[in-house]
Order: sequence, then structure tokens, then C-alpha cells
Amino acid sequence: MSDVKKVVLAYSGGLDTSVIVKWLQETYNCEVVTFTADIGQGEEVEPARTKAQALGVKEIYIEDLREEFVRDYVFPMFRANTIYEGEYLLGTSIARPLIAKRLIEIANETGADAISHGATGKGNDQVRFELGGYALKPGVKVIAPWREWDLTSREKLMAYCEEHKIPVDFSNKKKKSPYSMDANLLHISYEGGILEDPWAEAEDDMWRWSVSPEAAPDTPTYVELTYEKGDIVAIDGEPLKAHEVLEKLNKLGGDNGIGRLDIVENRYVGMKSRGCYETPGGTIMLRAHRAIESLTLDREEAHLKDQLMPKYAEVIYNGYWWSPERRMLQAAIDETQKNVSGVVRMKLYKGNAIVVGRKSDESLFDESIATFEDDAGAYDQKDAEGFIKLNALRLRIAAGKGRKQS
Amino acid sequence: MSDVKKVVLAYSGGLDTSVIVKWLQETYNCEVVTFTADIGQGEEVEPARTKAQALGVKEIYIEDLREEFVRDYVFPMFRANTIYEGEYLLGTSIARPLIAKRLIEIANETGADAISHGATGKGNDQVRFELGGYALKPGVKVIAPWREWDLTSREKLMAYCEEHKIPVDFSNKKKKSPYSMDANLLHISYEGGILEDPWAEAEDDMWRWSVSPEAAPDTPTYVELTYEKGDIVAIDGEPLKAHEVLEKLNKLGGDNGIGRLDIVENRYVGMKSRGCYETPGGTIMLRAHRAIESLTLDREEAHLKDQLMPKYAEVIYNGYWWSPERRMLQAAIDETQKNVSGVVRMKLYKGNAIVVGRKSDESLFDESIATFEDDAGAYDQKDAEGFIKLNALRLRIAAGKGRKQS
Amino acid sequence: MSDVKKVVLAYSGGLDTSVIVKWLQETYNCEVVTFTADIGQGEEVEPARTKAQALGVKEIYIEDLREEFVRDYVFPMFRANTIYEGEYLLGTSIARPLIAKRLIEIANETGADAISHGATGKGNDQVRFELGGYALKPGVKVIAPWREWDLTSREKLMAYCEEHKIPVDFSNKKKKSPYSMDANLLHISYEGGILEDPWAEAEDDMWRWSVSPEAAPDTPTYVELTYEKGDIVAIDGEPLKAHEVLEKLNKLGGDNGIGRLDIVENRYVGMKSRGCYETPGGTIMLRAHRAIESLTLDREEAHLKDQLMPKYAEVIYNGYWWSPERRMLQAAIDETQKNVSGVVRMKLYKGNAIVVGRKSDESLFDESIATFEDDAGAYDQKDAEGFIKLNALRLRIAAGKGRKQS
Amino acid sequence: MSDVKKVVLAYSGGLDTSVIVKWLQETYNCEVVTFTADIGQGEEVEPARTKAQALGVKEIYIEDLREEFVRDYVFPMFRANTIYEGEYLLGTSIARPLIAKRLIEIANETGADAISHGATGKGNDQVRFELGGYALKPGVKVIAPWREWDLTSREKLMAYCEEHKIPVDFSNKKKKSPYSMDANLLHISYEGGILEDPWAEAEDDMWRWSVSPEAAPDTPTYVELTYEKGDIVAIDGEPLKAHEVLEKLNKLGGDNGIGRLDIVENRYVGMKSRGCYETPGGTIMLRAHRAIESLTLDREEAHLKDQLMPKYAEVIYNGYWWSPERRMLQAAIDETQKNVSGVVRMKLYKGNAIVVGRKSDESLFDESIATFEDDAGAYDQKDAEGFIKLNALRLRIAAGKGRKQS
Repeated sequence: MSDVKKVVLAYSGGLDTSVIVKWLQETYNCEVVTFTADIGQGEEVEPARTKAQALGVKEIYIEDLREEFVRDYVFPMFRANTIYEGEYLLGTSIARPLIAKRLIEIANETGADAISHGATGKGNDQVRFELGGYALKPGVKVIAPWREWDLTSREKLMAYCEEHKIPVDFSNKKKKSPYSMDANLLHISYEGGILEDPWAEAEDDMWRWSVSPEAAPDTPTYVELTYEKGDIVAIDGEPLKAHEVLEKLNKLGGDNGIGRLDIVENRYVGMKSRGCYETPGGTIMLRAHRAIESLTLDREEAHLKDQLMPKYAEVIYNGYWWSPERRMLQAAIDETQKNVSGVVRMKLYKGNAIVVGRKSDESLFDESIATFEDDAGAYDQKDAEGFIKLNALRLRIAAGKGRKQS
Repeated sequence: MSDVKKVVLAYSGGLDTSVIVKWLQETYNCEVVTFTADIGQGEEVEPARTKAQALGVKEIYIEDLREEFVRDYVFPMFRANTIYEGEYLLGTSIARPLIAKRLIEIANETGADAISHGATGKGNDQVRFELGGYALKPGVKVIAPWREWDLTSREKLMAYCEEHKIPVDFSNKKKKSPYSMDANLLHISYEGGILEDPWAEAEDDMWRWSVSPEAAPDTPTYVELTYEKGDIVAIDGEPLKAHEVLEKLNKLGGDNGIGRLDIVENRYVGMKSRGCYETPGGTIMLRAHRAIESLTLDREEAHLKDQLMPKYAEVIYNGYWWSPERRMLQAAIDETQKNVSGVVRMKLYKGNAIVVGRKSDESLFDESIATFEDDAGAYDQKDAEGFIKLNALRLRIAAGKGRKQS
Repeated sequence: MSDVKKVVLAYSGGLDTSVIVKWLQETYNCEVVTFTADIGQGEEVEPARTKAQALGVKEIYIEDLREEFVRDYVFPMFRANTIYEGEYLLGTSIARPLIAKRLIEIANETGADAISHGATGKGNDQVRFELGGYALKPGVKVIAPWREWDLTSREKLMAYCEEHKIPVDFSNKKKKSPYSMDANLLHISYEGGILEDPWAEAEDDMWRWSVSPEAAPDTPTYVELTYEKGDIVAIDGEPLKAHEVLEKLNKLGGDNGIGRLDIVENRYVGMKSRGCYETPGGTIMLRAHRAIESLTLDREEAHLKDQLMPKYAEVIYNGYWWSPERRMLQAAIDETQKNVSGVVRMKLYKGNAIVVGRKSDESLFDESIATFEDDAGAYDQKDAEGFIKLNALRLRIAAGKGRKQS
Repeated sequence: MSDVKKVVLAYSGGLDTSVIVKWLQETYNCEVVTFTADIGQGEEVEPARTKAQALGVKEIYIEDLREEFVRDYVFPMFRANTIYEGEYLLGTSIARPLIAKRLIEIANETGADAISHGATGKGNDQVRFELGGYALKPGVKVIAPWREWDLTSREKLMAYCEEHKIPVDFSNKKKKSPYSMDANLLHISYEGGILEDPWAEAEDDMWRWSVSPEAAPDTPTYVELTYEKGDIVAIDGEPLKAHEVLEKLNKLGGDNGIGRLDIVENRYVGMKSRGCYETPGGTIMLRAHRAIESLTLDREEAHLKDQLMPKYAEVIYNGYWWSPERRMLQAAIDETQKNVSGVVRMKLYKGNAIVVGRKSDESLFDESIATFEDDAGAYDQKDAEGFIKLNALRLRIAAGKGRKQS
């Protein structure tokens, strides 16, 4: 274990990754570089600096990645209306590739030969961090302490802290959440605790970003989202940067009880797990994006997108953002977004994100053809007969030859 | 036009299809057989008998198809979590194959050589009726009056009625809905009128089966749905037939403001149209079915189902229920449902259909493995390292040879 | 029929399209513009000029489109390893979009309001011409004489010629092929005649571009194909333009009895038809392209390409080259071809196009890892255990819970 | 390592697996049960008995699995026209699930708690054996000696033999093939040696089952294959069992130089490898099956099969025969084969397997419609106009609104 000289750690400033700093220094006898990013998790990142310094870290990276995160990861993903297993908006999955990329870039800058993270050996995040790392720096050494050490219980961790004089934040210790949580601008996730029984209803005080539908206002909020090439660029007419869009929608959604989700999902490592997710802004964006596409996308490209989406979601969920297959799918998706521009009007009310209007200069909706009124010859109903007859031809031939169709 | 001797008409008893009876008799000089089915549209079907008799019809078929409709069409479709273009639950599409099948069976019973329907030349329903008809009786003659006649406005229709002494129900005439509507046990659809402007919000008095979320009760309703092999067989422990399940869920959903949808969709005939749909029970069923599958389906079959679903939805939407490709997809879908049994607990509240629990004797959720607590060796975290390394191998090789991954 | 002022006709110079010139002039009382293209069909196009002049045509377009055809249509299609229904190399399908595009461009240049072609009402080509036409000029009028006129037999056509003094080339008339044929640089197709019986073997004297395998040389020919970004740019080291590549490979393939194909295929208009195809160069290219991709493509992008290919082939076969879905698929395909460069060595022998070697500077083949010899630690075999165990986890859990796996 | 009591070994009778017998006995101090199967590899299996006895094995299983192998594995796979990465007929992949199944069944019969095999840690076969084993007996212990021991060179193996008095067959030792080979009724595979350079042409004396095209007879062989529900049941009118079909086609194909393949493929463990495959009968079957399907399958089910095939091939290649996703795909595939019956006539000549005729009582080919001659009204060419116009509608609308289509 002596071959590692310097390791870049994804450092939250919390207890677990603080222990990891010390453990890496001791176990690998190597220098530790910490990397702490603000991706909208809702906690100050600057305090990580003094904590890292106290642990003897000399190279400390603290960065605000919120805009990059939403612009280059969240938005491209939403162009595909991406949901995993019909429900999950991939809030955790989509943050990992950016962290992995920065870990590697910092490793290259600081001359580190290894990266490390605080994800366990049972989850998806280890996979996402490490696949990203290997894809971007093939010779990198990856250290995953949770797969190596024997600090497998909270008691052992605490004992380690005491032994190594790692300051434990007592207030934190007291009201330690019973859930394993992860947060970024797109969502908060909750796992563990009573959630390990999929029959048990999540407790209302678990949720952090949203009020319950019951507690939401009795009057709806209307909001207009302006799209350009598949991305939201303004809310109620006000131009916003990518992360500002999501921050605003999180606020609007959370206030109206929107975006809570409670599912059992299939992890890439082969087990099912139960998770609760809070994705206020994302839930609004998914609906709204489909609405603007409904006006501006051609039918066949829309259907093809829908057929490719589950694969694209799987690629991201499994941690293959930095892969040729993701780029290939992205090329197809982005090709369709050139005309996905316009405005969607949404009504937000007690958990519901309802599309109530959509308009676009690029609209393919043709009132003169679709109308139930007289269309002035825009569409010749007689064409339908030939259309149907030739579409039926293969079925008619088969039935004529005695094939059973029922 | 003299070659048609007898035609079976899908007859609603309403004004339009009553005109069609007369028009067929006159234009084709043929006998008309009427077929009226109760598929849960919420109107009495028996009155169609006297209306048909008054029009001189001798062979009158009036049938209650509600159970068959839900059991053999709606439920198989829901096994696939079927939604068209990300939103639409296919309420109209799924009713047409059954009507087409009965039209053909009645044609065979009565010796008719043609079938007819009241669908226009712009919509999907003409396609669905006729593809079904041709697939089941390849030599059948199809008469689509709306594509042939010149009664292209309400005024002309009314004039025709007066001329031919077709009694017009005045009360109906007065409060004639401004929307083109279609209803069955799965949904009501609304098109036309102000909906032809996709930016215009639907008026609240349009909706018939559901209260608005605002008007729904302030306390949630909980309900438990019991699944067997992918279909709901009991609600809150009470065994129910297929159509009883849907009737009950429609009531529960409608009372809680659930199932309203407002979309722009792509028709098979090539145009976009705006439609509003009210699918209270179906909206609950979609969520619940995914929840019971989340416990009982293997990951890979679940993902494969998700990839096939858009195609399956397209097949049904376009009218190819009676086709080899639908049977092929159904075979794959049904193969996966053998173990989709258990109970889903839902919370219904002001437009929200929320899954709050799920359990199953066939559950593949393994708490001993998934737990954040000590798993007593059920899962060896060290396996993850090899798993990740080999999954990364192709990416590492590529990066090692200088391929750019970002 | 008087509303057409000027029509651009895809004019081969042959008897049928010469009749169409006259028929259009008479029936529509309009001016006819002829467009004749050399796309490698192997016949002089210049003679079409005097023929058109003799028919009173004033605007005559005669163009050599061979390079554009191969570069912008054939090559992009081959990047996807495109085959329709497992066999057909789409030789006819891929030529139509270019013809359609030029028809429309010429219509725009000459102020014509209509286009016309000589394809029948039963085949795919009418669809391909017309979909292209409508996509590129939505208001264009399309005239398809074979769907309109009553010249439905050779006798009637001949009578029309005599009546209208259209010179019939007697030599041609005598040795008129019993087959309906179509040729361009990619292939010749044969339909009709004895081929209408799918049990009947094609006669050897039908084929035009290739010798039979039996008649091919007894010694093999070796050839090296150099790829850049998915396209062949040199043969045996000699740089060639796109159409020169195909001309050369047609010669090499034809001389060695390569590229004959005899199939029953499904037409877009709903019927099955039997066709024989002669595609010497294309058959070599398909194999060679797969070979260079086998070295240079990542596994997952390669598999995704294979999954998308049947759809892409269908899109082209059905005539949707000029469509959003084709562009979307092309974007995905082209994204994968950036590194598809290198050399493939082929052995051509009596009908066989055999890959015997492939090399590339972009190769992802890593001998140090793949070797059966000592790999000096490049690959840790112990990683395989974790890889297999986690991939098996979902199966083990299911089996442990009593699910039957066989 | 003392916790294994009895292990069932896939035993070929060759040197390597003989060493494994001894190594298992020594290393795990456990009883070894050998299992040797005739799956058409072309070597006697009975001699394995005395060899195993000499090694002290008491429970010896020797079985002829040829019929089961072809009937229940090869034939179902060929119903899907299965090829991996466009070329490979999966000859090795498809034999592994049967071996895995028998290993587990024998473990259950003999009370063994472990299974073992002679596959290396770099290849796909370890994955296939072990995934099958875990899927069928989730608690089984798997021992993969090549991943554990240090006998990593031929020299060390030989030393081990001498030390442990394992008789080495000298004649065998002398003419030891330079290739790593695997054989069964479907194919022989060759890897390693000079093949590790993908630019090097395979030497002609490598191939065992087929003559070269050059050495094949100068006159073609014609053969007629009779299909029932997707499987061949007779050759030239003579009814045959599944394995007899393949044996006969291997002979016919091999004699005519058919079925040699030389590719670079992507292994599931993440590396590319170069392999040569000899699949005479399978190559004929693939072409013939497509031909009988071309007459008897509906277009849309055929296209859907083609879209699913690459995934199905991947599932088998990766070792997931015993999985829910394979059963799901198989259900879809088998649903389509009910009418795939009839006769295909093939011409075999110097490496070419050419379809020259096909006929079927279930044929959907309709000469009266497809004909270039007068069809007596079977098809109304005017239907094509409406068909095209509505199919073009979405493109016309888009172009009319200024969307660029090129």
C-alpha cells in the first residue's frame, strides 16, 4: 500500500470523509488533497477548508460548480426526458460524472496518482465515481475506503475519531438523520432507516425541501418557462442562468409540495433498494420539456427519442456518462433539440405540476389542419382511405390466407 | 355503390350515427344492422334500441362488454405500463379493437358484407376500426360516411335530419358540448372548441368525471390494490372483476381530483392535435403497477419492458391491436408478469396518486443485502472492485490509447 | 388537371418515360422539364438530350451525380452497416433521395409547380420520390402517371407511341429484358418474369455485372481498403474519390462472382416481392466496414449501432431519407465514426469476400491484455470473480427466493 | 478452503482438466465428481472414464447430450437469426448453458456443494458457466482454478503432472495445436497463436472441419431443407432429429468450404479478441432460416425480430441464457415461429451458401398482388396516393413552416 503518493479525495467536510482523510494518511502514508464542491447541496462548503487544514491537508480545492453542473449535465439529460425505471429523475447519478471529472483534473494538476471517495461498496456511487475516473485517467489508482477498512459501524467510526482526535460536531451527532442522504441542486435522496421496509410509509418529517401537498398553499401558482433549443432560459420572462433556473424551480416546486417520490429501484450492483427522492424543480422540468416538445418535435423523432430514453437513463444511472455510448446517444438527442423553443405555462398546486398551455414559433401544430371545423381543403379526408388500405394490406393478405389474427 | 347488401354499424344512438343509419340505407340501398355496446361510457345503451327500430333497423345488437373490455384489453395493456408519447394512457385507442372485433363477428353472424362507423377522416379512430376490420375479415367492405358524404357541417346534418324525419333530442341539442368527446370505462377524451389553441387553458367545467384538485377533499384517501400476475384482483381486500376494479378506481380517483391530462399528441394520420383526457382509475393503476413490478420484476426484464413499451404503445395507438407485432410484444410482456403479485398501498390526495407502500410474497427485495446495517456477510463489498474494474476495462483501454472521453 | 403549369420529370431517356413526357404534355397541357442523371447506371445519359428535344422539351437537365451519390448517400448509409431484412443492401432505396432532391431544386430553378416520375403504384419507389418531394417542397404537385393513366400493358404503350410518333428503339424492343430492372453505382435490381415464383431459381444469364462464382478466376484476388472516419478513401494505397472507390470495387467484386443476392422482401406498400440484386462493391464494403469497426469501435457503441441499424434501414427503405428521424439516427452513427480509420485486407474468391486482416492506428485491440501468453499483470484475473458475482447477484437473489430460472 | 466437500467438474479428459481434478483434491481436500458430455466436439468421451478413475474419481458422469444441445439450445437460438456483432454465430456461447445446467443437476444428485471448470479468468466462458451455476443453484460454490492457482505456464503444468503422476499423452503433447480451440456440434473456435495479430491471415492448416473454398468441388451441391415452426425437420425429404440435421449440414457445408469466419470481437470482460470460427452447418441454417421467414413472417414482426436480435445475441454471448430477459425475448421470438414452415432450396458451392428457392403452405407472398402483369384488381394503385400523402403530412407541415429537411 506504499505505492500511492498523493490522493485526491472527494471531501464533504462531514465526519465520514474527515475520517477518510486521516485513514488515507495513515494507511497509505500519502498526501491527501481535498476537493469540495458546491453543487447546490444546500450546505456551506467554505467550512470544509478549516476542517481539512486541521487534518493536515495542504492542497485544498473548494469550488462552486453549480452553473456547470446544471448547464452541462442536468440540462443535457433533461433534453431526453430521462427517467430511470419509469420514475427516478437520476438526481444522484447525474452529479457524479462532474465530481469524477474534477477529481481527475485536480489529480493531474497536483500530480496525484490516486483518487478516493466516501461511497460504500454496495451502492451505485462507487461505480459512477470509479468508471468516470478510469475513463478519464486510465492508470489512476482508486481507493474506496469503505470497501477496505474495518470501520463498519458508527461505533467504530467514533472510536477512530476519538483515537485520532478528529473533532466530532456534537450538535450534528445528536440530531443525526436516520437516513442516508445525498443532495445537490437537482434533488435530495433518502435511504436506509425505516425505508428499508418497502411497505412502510415515509415519515413526513423526513422531507427537507418541499412542504407536503397538504401543507402547500390553497391557491395555485402559475409560471411560464421559456425554452431555447431544449433548455430553459427564462422563467416568467426573466432570463436566468442554468443553475438559477433550477434554484427558482426548486423553490416554486417545493413551496407547492411538488417532487416527492418514493420507489424501489434496481441498483447496478444487482440488488433492489428503496429510496425516497425530492426533486421539485426537476419534476416541473420533465413535464414542461415534454410539453414544449409536443409542439415542436416531429412525431417520428419524438418516438425514437422515447425508445432510446430507457437506454440513455440506464447508461447514466450505471455510471457511464464518460463513455462512447453516452456521447452517441447525446448526439442523437441534441440533434432533435434545435427547434425545441417556445413557452410552456404551468400550474403548480399541492403536489401537481400541470401543463396548461404551450406555444412556440417553431410549432408544428397546424390549427388549419387539425380543426374540427371546416379546414378549407387543407386536408383531404379521402386520402385516409388509401392510407388505411395499404397499411392494412399485409394484414388482409395474411387473413386471406387463413392466418388467425386474434 | 349497389354492391353492399348489409352493413353492420357501430351505433351510439346519438344524432350522428342515427343520420348514418339513414344515409347508409339511402345511399347504399342496403340493410343496416346496428351494434351498440356498453363499454362504460356512462350512458344507457338500451335507448338505442327504440331509436334504431324507429329508423327501420331489424337486427339490433346491444351488449354489455364492460368486463371483456377491461379484462382482455385494458388490463393486458397496463401490464406494459403503456403510455403514448410519455403522457397519454390510450383510453380511446384501447376500446377500438373490441368494437372492431364485434362488428366483424356480427357481420359474420348476420351475413353482412360491410361495416361502418362514425369516425371522421382526420382522426385515428377510422384507422383503428378499419385495420381491425380488415385484419379479422380481409374481404369486408368498409363504409366511412364522414369521408364520403357532404354533410360536413352541423347545419347540413340538421337539415338532413329534418328532411328524413330523424328525431333530434332537443335537450341534447341545447346543451351540446362544445367539445368532441369519447368515453369508456378507461377515460373521457375532449377535443375541439377552444382546445384547438394549445396555449388556451382548458375550462374547468369541461371535465366530467373528476373534481378539480382544488375541489377535492382536504384529507387523503388510502387504498390497497392486490395484484395477481400483473392484474388487480382486489381493492382493500375485496375481490372484484376487472371492470369493477376500474369502476371503483374511477370513483376513488375522480373524487380526489386524479387523472386529468392536457396534451398535444401526434396522430397516426400525420397531424398534431390537442386533447384533454380524464383517466382517474388508469392514472392510479399505472403508478401502482410500476410499484408492484418494482418489487417483483428482475432488473433486466424490467428495463427491456421499458425499452419495448414505446413501440407497444405506438402499435396500439396506431390501431394494430389485431396484428402479429402486437401479439409478439404481448407474449414478451405477459412472460414477465407471472410473479407480479402482491399489494400496493396508495395515497390519493387532490390530484396526487402516491405510492406509499408495496409488499409481495414474490418480492425480490432482499433487506439482508440492501441494508445499511451489518449484513452478516450476505454481500461481499470487495466483489465491487472487480466488477467495476472489468466494466471499466474497455474505457481504460480506450483512454490508454488516447481516445478522448469527454 | 389544368392547374399544373410546368412539371419536372425524372427522365431516363427510355421508352416509358418518353411516353410520360408526351402524356404529361397532353394530359396536363403543361410544359415538361426533363432531368436525367448519371448515377452509375452504366448507360450514356447524353442521348437523353436529343430524345427530349424530339419530344419538344425545352429545359433539359443532364447531370453526372456519381460522386455526390456515393459520397453523400451511399457512404453515410454504409457507416451503419445497413442491411434491410438481414440481406438487402438498399441499392435502389438510397438513390431515390438524391433524385428527389434534384427534382425539387430544378423545380425551384425553373419555376415548375409539379414533379413526375415513372414508378408504378405498387412499388416503393413512388413513395421514396414523393416523400422526398413533399419534404423538400411541401406544396409541390406530384404526378404519378402509372397511377393515373390507362396504359397498363405493353401493347397499349406501343399503340400510344405509334399514335404520338414516339420513336421506339427497335433493337431495344427486341432484346427487351424479361425483368424489371434498376441500376446505379451501388447495384442492379431484377424483378418480375420468372422471379415472380419464389421457388424458381434465377437464370444465370439474368445477371449483368458479375460472373457466376463458377466462372470466376481460380485464384483469389487480394485487396487492401483504407478507411478514414468510416469511409473508404484508398484502395491498395491509391487515393480515390467516393464514386471511384465504388466503381473499382464493383469491378473487383463482379470479376470474382461477388454480390449476387436473391430474396423475398417486404415492401412498404404492404406486399411481399421477390427481387434479385447484384451489389459487388457494396458486398465487399459491408464486410470490410464491419472489420475496421471491429478494431476501432468501443463495444457498447458498436452494440447500440447494431440495435439501431434495422430502424435506420427501414427509414431508408421506406423513403424517409429527408426526415428528422433519419438525421437523428445519422447524428448518432456519425458520432461513432470519428476513429473508424485503418486498413482492411480482403480476399476475393468465387463469390466470397473474406476479411483476412485489419489494422489501425486507432485500434482498441490490446494484445498485451488479450494474449493467452503471460500478460505481465496487464489484466488481473481475480477481478473476474467480483465481476461475475455482482452480475449474478440479481439471479442468485431470485433463485434464492424460489424463482425458476429454467 | 476446507469448506468444500464435493465438487462437480466439467471434465474433458484432457490434460488441463485432469490437472484440475488432482489440484481440487489436494487444494480443497474434497471429493471430485467428473462430468463429461458429448456435445458433438468430435472426440470420444468414453476414454474420460478410465482417466478419471485413474485420478481416483468415484462418481463419473459421461453423457451424450447432442440431441438436447441442438434441439433445446441451438435451434431456439437460430429462430432469432442470431449473430453477435454482425458476424459470430455464437457457437461456444450456446453450449455453456447446457453444461452449467448439467453441472448443477449433478451437484444436486450427488450432494455436491461446488462446481468447477477449466475456463480462464480472461474469457467469456467462466462468466457463462458461473452465471448459469448461480442462477440455477444460488448457494453453489464456484471454483475456477485458472483464477486461483499459480500453474500459469505450460511448463508449470507439466511439472505438476510429473510430480503428481498424471499421465501425459505424449502423442498429444507433440502435435499440440498452437491454438486455443473449442468444439461442439455447432462450431470449432480458434484463438491465440499467430491470431493474436489481427493483421495476420489465418493459416490454412488451422481449419479442421472444412476444406478451403479453393479445395471444394467444382460443381455445386443442391439441398432442400424442410422447416416446421422455425426448426429444420428434414433434409432432402428425409426426416431427421435436431442433431442429425446439424451433423448432416456440417458435412455438406464443410465439404463445400462453407462457414469459415475470421473476426475481432468484444468480450464481456472488456477486451477485444481475435477469433476464427468454423460453422459449416450453422452458416447454412442462418441463411435458410431467413429465407423461410421471408415468405412466412409478417413484415412488422420480422422487423421487430431484427431489432431485438442484437440484444438477444448479447444476452447469450454474455452468459445470461438462464435469465428472465432471455426467456422474455424467447417468448417473443417463439410467438413468431408458428407459421415458419416450408422448404428452402440451397446451392452450396465453394464457400457460398446461396438461397435459390423457397416455398411454403404458410406463404404470405401473393403473386396475384405482387405481379408486374395485370393483377385483375387485386390491388388498387390509387390507394398509394392517399398512403403517401398522409405519410408525408408531418413532413409537409414541417417544411411548410420553414423547417429544413436537408
